[in-house]
Amino acid sequence: MPTVYATAPRDAADDLARFLVENRLAACVNVVDCDSVYRWDGTLYDDEAEAILFAKTTAERYPDLKRELEAEHPDDVPCIERFDAVDTLEAYADWVGREVR
Amino acid sequence: MPTVYATAPRDAADDLARFLVENRLAACVNVVDCDSVYRWDGTLYDDEAEAILFAKTTAERYPDLKRELEAEHPDDVPCIERFDAVDTLEAYADWVGREVR
Amino acid sequence: MPTVYATAPRDAADDLARFLVENRLAACVNVVDCDSVYRWDGTLYDDEAEAILFAKTTAERYPDLKRELEAEHPDDVPCIERFDAVDTLEAYADWVGREVR
Repeated sequence: MPTVYATAPRDAADDLARFLVENRLAACVNVVDCDSVYRWDGTLYDDEAEAILFAKTTAERYPDLKRELEAEHPDDVPCIERFDAVDTLEAYADWVGREVR
Repeated sequence: MPTVYATAPRDAADDLARFLVENRLAACVNVVDCDSVYRWDGTLYDDEAEAILFAKTTAERYPDLKRELEAEHPDDVPCIERFDAVDTLEAYADWVGREVR
Repeated sequence: MPTVYATAPRDAADDLARFLVENRLAACVNVVDCDSVYRWDGTLYDDEAEAILFAKTTAERYPDLKRELEAEHPDDVPCIERFDAVDTLEAYADWVGREVR
């Protein structure tokens, strides 16, 4: 079952999480504050106002989530990655499946 | 080597992490504060008092961790998922193996 | 595409993240505060001054990242693990590849 790892500016993260749940692209999104260290156009940045979104969805809904999250996202090149669990508590997997249908 | 991704109410997370380590179900648990956005019974929730537990264990101990964490967990349908690393620093993998034996 | 999950003492985490990006071992590192619960030499610890580093790199650069992060890390047995995404937004994957070349 997929978990999507995405990052966003902190002030956009809650709206993106709500967007995913309201549109049944994810059953649940866990939002975590983070600092992001990266290089852009040759300059090193240390951005303390970012967040990671861990979005719980299904294999069937993942392509929609990826496309719609990219379109809704304020960044030009957002981090959107899919990691697949090798096992999920059955009742939780059932709940995710019902919520994103 | 498995990392278990589980969520819990913030005020239960530390006790669950200690439970896993004390019972040698995990060698180490990293606990991270998060907000959780989800729908339950048709209502959208934005719960700012949650936490993610990243629990380090072995393939052998994972079935026990899953069963005992579900039993100990205050939620009816907790998020408990297993993600397998494709590589782990050898000395760390050895340490995890010794701690959960 | 690999994401490296590593932990570090909170006061070393930002320097390690900068080290990885400055040396083009990772394109981006997300640093998250955490508590770590673990047993060491028979004593249970609950260390509230730790951090998780999620480092974005390529399969080609991962062996270098692993070796150099272990050498630079203040702990004797650091948690360094590789998790592979099954899908990554194409523009983001391209950017990571360019940054760690």
